[in-house]
Amino acid sequence: MSELRKDPITRRWVIIATERAARPNQLHAPSPVTPEDLPEKDPKCPFCEGNEKMTPPEVMAYRHAGTGRDSAGWWVRVIPNKYSAVDPSTPLERMGEGMYDMATGFGVHEVIVESTKHNLRWGNATEREFEEIFWAYRDRLIHLTRNPALRYVLIFKNYGREAGASQPHGHSQLIALPVVPKRVLEEQESSADYWRMKERCPMCDIIRQESSDEKRIIYETESHIALAPYASYLPFQMLILPKMHRPFFERVEKSEVMDLARLFRRVFWSLSEVLGDPPFNCVLHTTPPASAGDERYNHWHFEVVPRLTKVAGFEWGSGFYINVATPEDAARALREQIGECCT
Amino acid sequence: MSELRKDPITRRWVIIATERAARPNQLHAPSPVTPEDLPEKDPKCPFCEGNEKMTPPEVMAYRHAGTGRDSAGWWVRVIPNKYSAVDPSTPLERMGEGMYDMATGFGVHEVIVESTKHNLRWGNATEREFEEIFWAYRDRLIHLTRNPALRYVLIFKNYGREAGASQPHGHSQLIALPVVPKRVLEEQESSADYWRMKERCPMCDIIRQESSDEKRIIYETESHIALAPYASYLPFQMLILPKMHRPFFERVEKSEVMDLARLFRRVFWSLSEVLGDPPFNCVLHTTPPASAGDERYNHWHFEVVPRLTKVAGFEWGSGFYINVATPEDAARALREQIGECCT
Repeated sequence: MSELRKDPITRRWVIIATERAARPNQLHAPSPVTPEDLPEKDPKCPFCEGNEKMTPPEVMAYRHAGTGRDSAGWWVRVIPNKYSAVDPSTPLERMGEGMYDMATGFGVHEVIVESTKHNLRWGNATEREFEEIFWAYRDRLIHLTRNPALRYVLIFKNYGREAGASQPHGHSQLIALPVVPKRVLEEQESSADYWRMKERCPMCDIIRQESSDEKRIIYETESHIALAPYASYLPFQMLILPKMHRPFFERVEKSEVMDLARLFRRVFWSLSEVLGDPPFNCVLHTTPPASAGDERYNHWHFEVVPRLTKVAGFEWGSGFYINVATPEDAARALREQIGECCT
Repeated sequence: MSELRKDPITRRWVIIATERAARPNQLHAPSPVTPEDLPEKDPKCPFCEGNEKMTPPEVMAYRHAGTGRDSAGWWVRVIPNKYSAVDPSTPLERMGEGMYDMATGFGVHEVIVESTKHNLRWGNATEREFEEIFWAYRDRLIHLTRNPALRYVLIFKNYGREAGASQPHGHSQLIALPVVPKRVLEEQESSADYWRMKERCPMCDIIRQESSDEKRIIYETESHIALAPYASYLPFQMLILPKMHRPFFERVEKSEVMDLARLFRRVFWSLSEVLGDPPFNCVLHTTPPASAGDERYNHWHFEVVPRLTKVAGFEWGSGFYINVATPEDAARALREQIGECCT
């Protein structure tokens, strides 16, 4: 039987409806995002080593000693997005236009090239590769949050065309704007409400309840946990977060980075095995450093949403999400696959 | 130059970035949703006349005198969705599950078959055909809002596979649940805030400002207006609403239905001509009858969003919408096309 569930953070009601799963091929990626025969290097790829001149000049890179900017010899490289819709050199101005609010197109849009390997994918990345990606996330957060005009730094990964990626070479992105994205704002507001009511962080409460329940736990390491959220709005949605209350991703310690990489490796390997290398979106929500008091109820987390269903339009029209897989089933499938893993 | 704009109702900041439009084929449907040679009747289509036994029994139909239920002789027919995730016969129960909220899968999910014509599309529908569709919307609203357990009746149309439609035969849908969809709730809350600040309906203010500006007006009839919203989050987004303050769609008068049909015919013909019969989602937001005071600031409206860009994933990951067409350009293109119309 189907049921309605409400997410305590987004306050979205979702229909969890397993009956609809009967509709053909909704729960497996139609084809793998990354073909088996994708080469490790593509001479035409702007993100491959040796092609540094095909991109705008790098803003940061992890490089071997003695190599120069915008040349070979790096293992993670951060560059401005060539098609950026915002520009860090535009002066920020906020204006009214009658009853409306607007601002100039000031902001930062960067690409984090995750490795020199053209065919790196999170489904088969090593712990070491994940660690380097997390360090790059952290370093960009620290660098960009120094600018008080940037109100939020959003780091995300779109994997596969259906998820919005236009380049096959493994990369993440980062957008920093003088305004806070609506979904982040909503999350912060509802977490603040929760705090006012209970003086507890809602994510900490979720971890407590899920840990006693166990059925929606995908994987746990010493300091991190991956869950299928109670009111998942899409099949195989995942929440990855530290078990202790941690507001700021950029304050992560080295041992925690290693621990998180251990979890990511297993969870994304499992996701790829169970669903056939599906397209997905992954977003990091963290707390801006300037927040006053928000660190009590903001708990950094990654939100991962595979893009499995071909028909993605229903919820646009309806405003309601119908999830054709229960989070309990999704968590079990992923958990069991991890059992087969990779040590 | 790009700019950031904030929608006063949804409070979403959007990047309006015309530079990105340089990317190939983002502003024309890759192929028409409805092929020219689609027949007027398809013997295998469950929504075609004569195939009434292929659907669940009808809950309402406009029929010629002397014709019987679930047989030929209708011109609009409403049936339960065969793949409904909710069930009106399920007893409604609200429950807690630890810190979470849930409810049983009680609700109504119906399909409104808009005509017997298999190949009817809004791009070439007549005024008369639109009128009958609006009467069906109205009648279902009146019928379903009698049940106080249904907190919101959402009527919407998904046109084309990319927009979530699984049948080519022209149809709308309706979902009524014991909970309010998140997007509607947000709209109501921000409209209530606006009222508290100004004691004016925000939609009425938008109409006033747009009417003096004119550059985002797509088309006007005596009592309705079609606009490109100031902070459109997708190209060619449209807002269609009554010029006078009207909270309840179901209280529409016959002359207003005719007037609205005049507007819909021209606007959707123009949309189809300009963009090549694109997929779209259309949603009706109206005020629940039981609302106390909400009728002061809720103003019914249709929200129309064509699904043009192939890459729809960016905003999922980023939380930010980048609109590659200015609403001013979209409104001008649609307005000029209507000039060529159809009288």
